Amino acid sequence: MKRISLQPVHHILATKEMTVNQLLSQMTKTGVMGAGRLGRAADIYEMMLKDKECTKFFGLAGAMVPGGMKQIIIDMINDGWIDVLVTTGANLTHDLGEALGYRHYHSQEKISDAELHKQRLDRMFDSYMPDEIYEGLEDFFTKILPKLPKERMGISRFLREIAPQIPTKHPSILRACYEKNIPIYCPALADSGIGLQIWNYIQRHNLDVLAFEDLKEMLDIAWTAKKAGIFYVGGGVPKNYIQQALQLSKGATYAIQITMDRPEPGGSSGAELQEGISWGKLKEDAHFVNLICDTTIALPLIRAAVMDRMK
Amino acid sequence: MKRISLQPVHHILATKEMTVNQLLSQMTKTGVMGAGRLGRAADIYEMMLKDKECTKFFGLAGAMVPGGMKQIIIDMINDGWIDVLVTTGANLTHDLGEALGYRHYHSQEKISDAELHKQRLDRMFDSYMPDEIYEGLEDFFTKILPKLPKERMGISRFLREIAPQIPTKHPSILRACYEKNIPIYCPALADSGIGLQIWNYIQRHNLDVLAFEDLKEMLDIAWTAKKAGIFYVGGGVPKNYIQQALQLSKGATYAIQITMDRPEPGGSSGAELQEGISWGKLKEDAHFVNLICDTTIALPLIRAAVMDRMK
Amino acid sequence: MKRISLQPVHHILATKEMTVNQLLSQMTKTGVMGAGRLGRAADIYEMMLKDKECTKFFGLAGAMVPGGMKQIIIDMINDGWIDVLVTTGANLTHDLGEALGYRHYHSQEKISDAELHKQRLDRMFDSYMPDEIYEGLEDFFTKILPKLPKERMGISRFLREIAPQIPTKHPSILRACYEKNIPIYCPALADSGIGLQIWNYIQRHNLDVLAFEDLKEMLDIAWTAKKAGIFYVGGGVPKNYIQQALQLSKGATYAIQITMDRPEPGGSSGAELQEGISWGKLKEDAHFVNLICDTTIALPLIRAAVMDRMK
Amino acid sequence: MKRISLQPVHHILATKEMTVNQLLSQMTKTGVMGAGRLGRAADIYEMMLKDKECTKFFGLAGAMVPGGMKQIIIDMINDGWIDVLVTTGANLTHDLGEALGYRHYHSQEKISDAELHKQRLDRMFDSYMPDEIYEGLEDFFTKILPKLPKERMGISRFLREIAPQIPTKHPSILRACYEKNIPIYCPALADSGIGLQIWNYIQRHNLDVLAFEDLKEMLDIAWTAKKAGIFYVGGGVPKNYIQQALQLSKGATYAIQITMDRPEPGGSSGAELQEGISWGKLKEDAHFVNLICDTTIALPLIRAAVMDRMK
Repeated sequence: MKRISLQPVHHILATKEMTVNQLLSQMTKTGVMGAGRLGRAADIYEMMLKDKECTKFFGLAGAMVPGGMKQIIIDMINDGWIDVLVTTGANLTHDLGEALGYRHYHSQEKISDAELHKQRLDRMFDSYMPDEIYEGLEDFFTKILPKLPKERMGISRFLREIAPQIPTKHPSILRACYEKNIPIYCPALADSGIGLQIWNYIQRHNLDVLAFEDLKEMLDIAWTAKKAGIFYVGGGVPKNYIQQALQLSKGATYAIQITMDRPEPGGSSGAELQEGISWGKLKEDAHFVNLICDTTIALPLIRAAVMDRMK
Repeated sequence: MKRISLQPVHHILATKEMTVNQLLSQMTKTGVMGAGRLGRAADIYEMMLKDKECTKFFGLAGAMVPGGMKQIIIDMINDGWIDVLVTTGANLTHDLGEALGYRHYHSQEKISDAELHKQRLDRMFDSYMPDEIYEGLEDFFTKILPKLPKERMGISRFLREIAPQIPTKHPSILRACYEKNIPIYCPALADSGIGLQIWNYIQRHNLDVLAFEDLKEMLDIAWTAKKAGIFYVGGGVPKNYIQQALQLSKGATYAIQITMDRPEPGGSSGAELQEGISWGKLKEDAHFVNLICDTTIALPLIRAAVMDRMK
Repeated sequence: MKRISLQPVHHILATKEMTVNQLLSQMTKTGVMGAGRLGRAADIYEMMLKDKECTKFFGLAGAMVPGGMKQIIIDMINDGWIDVLVTTGANLTHDLGEALGYRHYHSQEKISDAELHKQRLDRMFDSYMPDEIYEGLEDFFTKILPKLPKERMGISRFLREIAPQIPTKHPSILRACYEKNIPIYCPALADSGIGLQIWNYIQRHNLDVLAFEDLKEMLDIAWTAKKAGIFYVGGGVPKNYIQQALQLSKGATYAIQITMDRPEPGGSSGAELQEGISWGKLKEDAHFVNLICDTTIALPLIRAAVMDRMK
Repeated sequence: MKRISLQPVHHILATKEMTVNQLLSQMTKTGVMGAGRLGRAADIYEMMLKDKECTKFFGLAGAMVPGGMKQIIIDMINDGWIDVLVTTGANLTHDLGEALGYRHYHSQEKISDAELHKQRLDRMFDSYMPDEIYEGLEDFFTKILPKLPKERMGISRFLREIAPQIPTKHPSILRACYEKNIPIYCPALADSGIGLQIWNYIQRHNLDVLAFEDLKEMLDIAWTAKKAGIFYVGGGVPKNYIQQALQLSKGATYAIQITMDRPEPGGSSGAELQEGISWGKLKEDAHFVNLICDTTIALPLIRAAVMDRMK
């Protein structure tokens, strides 16, 4: 009878002044349930970051800015933890809104949606965005869009043209990518508040932003990467777009996914990473973990733990 | 003390040869838990379809073709139940694959992802897509893309140019929309197997598909609609794109959402419809229901029940 | 290379006046995603009911009475579809409350929990129970408890003593079990509104209801069953108690589970049935399905479909 | 127009050597999405522990021992963070198994349930329990049960009689409660591996453990508590039993719930805490939070953060 290799479950010991890194290191030893997977996510990210041959793809979906994650993303970009960022139009809209001086809000009061509507507060679960942010976006785009180069470009290039126009007073994911020369892809940018501003502009002007242009760049990066590492914060287009590019790669060597979506409905967002092995998107012997957790909880923990491990 | 208006919970009586419509009609009377919401979804859809002033937006996400839902969508299009379809590139890719003669599969055997990879079967949860579908797609696009009009167009127009080229032997959602003159939007088409084929083509040819062009059409439809009705099968870009357009509308009068995604992480896919009231996307007095159910279960039930109520 | 046996995904065709059974029969052919699993649940239940050697265990958790499922359960008991019922104290409390003439309610109005409290309406998600039900329960138990035989008994026997005292005007799951001589187990009866009434009584009287007595009966049933079939509506103690008994059986031959709980947190409620193979609770070649669905949606559908297949 | 009181969303800054407490303190300021709720859970627990008038009820469900949480629970007991523990028979069985020298395991290998069955490894999601643990339990109970006092007792008293017999070599939740004189309730003890051992014993011996006896103690504690604080790790009977007792209290002043179960199916496990206001189980002005998270992730974080805040 074949012997199965088993490791005993270790019980976590919490101690005074414990660092996040100390706790996650203990979690790894609890096995492969929730805590064990969180610990393993930190371990895999550490491996990914320390592997000099690895191109690190980062898919960012969900309400990250209203959820308080903006600074962490910016710091990860600045520390070289992200080589390619794929995100949603919503994240870029919220990021740009804050860069223009607006804030997102929460409240301990219970407020009806009808009342919020009167006060022009747009609700995202339990966060509120002041609707006047759209006026700020309109001013911004009215000013800068006419100055864009009059040439055909993809969405990524379009974002690179916009980024240096963003005021520097407040931190911005988009500007951080620009400054660090990190390519940022947002295939569904039309599906966002920024999309609405561009629509407003193209009523009276031409703007030749091409839908498929970015694929060249993105697939080239995947194709030429010696090794690929992926980190999916949420699912949606950011995940699917990276997954698609990986079909042209050698398959990811490292992979982390954080989501609350279930796999059973069959959509891409909840699909477990190991599915990717059948497609050739993930190596058979890849280090990977499916972490089922609210991303606003897991991301700061992983970030804090792995910071301590990087020299 | 203000009297609350209460309705008693009725208990469902299942009977022999019961029709889907009879069962869902009983479910409505159970209240507002799962069964009650399913019953209410059918009631709202009936109202929406019978309201001649209502423009019906349909957002379709998730693995609908591998899940066996293709014919139902096509029949709904043909019966005039959908005025505007917004969907994902994956759904169009799977639809086109089947239109080209390929099938999706399932199996009672347990098969490892490594073995699936060897046999070139791409897994989507428990469904399999033969990888050779990509060869069929390549043949198709290699043949038709050179014939497309050499002019700037949006993604929706691009799909309308492709649709009549699809062979008629097998049913197709995309061709059904074309034949019924139903606009179809797919803002993230680049994020799909079809996107990959186009990328392949644009290595050597120009193809001026514009990223923001469709917004004009889509927002015009929302802006001019006397009333709006929405039906979200899953979340993702299809839902968000319609929600965004509704900001320019008078707010939806009827709204149905079917998803397994949770609202708490704050993303658009799981967000409850009533959030839309704060944004002006949903009327304060709208008829709406958030149905938490696998879409492949709920959609056929609602379709079958409402068919019996039309004329 | 080993050939995998694959079945193509069939697409559902919804037709006029379609019966629930016709629709679920089509769902089976869609594969093994949501709809396919629902169809398969009906198929397995049909097999289980038609197998004369099979003892049918039914675990019932969740707010089934406030959810409108009472009559279906009673009809299943009366039709001989259930041989052993395991349920929660909450279900028995709600059942008894309605048997005593109370109702559960829902409302289209939004009512704050504070307001509900003032009006003595106890909320269960979106259903309301009038708090005066407790007064009715107190009257009932004050009258009947003194008449119970003064002997040691288990919880199941205790329920069998109570059942014939329930007024016959309104239908009752508990009385239906009694009339059909179906054993009913409720290991956590203390954890319920009925438990509270008994506590009230035992302040001044002795009541020797034993905690472990039922195990004898329950395990004997499992031990002597030629074949076992299980149907779990929700998880909790009802599921776990049957699972535990199955350790003494030959392992279940047929198994259906309906729940929205996730497997990953590791608790019994969300655990997938196949885990039971490792324990010997489920046969290696069992017919089983994990259906991820709101139970108030799935149960009536399965009931209606299988009714048409019996005789 | 009434002004809504709004707080801006603060973005988390992760720093080197950051402690868990520092991170959770920042999370509180992100608002009321996932991270914000986790931060708030720590804040509320701190308040609860520092309020000398508060009786602290702790409901513990889910696979906590196979999940690596045993030591944390024991330390919380020893530190006086728990006044009343309500748990499942499964947790006590796993705890006792480890106290008797057995371990739980995990593995990086993929092992089929059929193979696990051959090797006598019982699977709980991704953890394994050696089936021989049952032999150890049988030895233990065969030895100690005959020595128990021959008198009527409730389940809690029964557990207090067993606890001092547990060998002291390995840590144990049950023995820690005994040593600290913390009452432990387990209404569904029959529904567990321990229940099976007792069943084995009562085949040949009398054992008068009463099902409803504990309610007296439990309800007295709730009734006489000046203030009540609750902490639910998972749902199930532990939560429901405490909730029920709170009906006799003044309503909880502090409340924390950690679960992945959804509220919509209407069961107790997923029900949001605010429902309790309608029942009088939760004060209208209570400090409470519904944290949607895997318990094995959230519990160690809260424990570590709050440790630093005590004294």
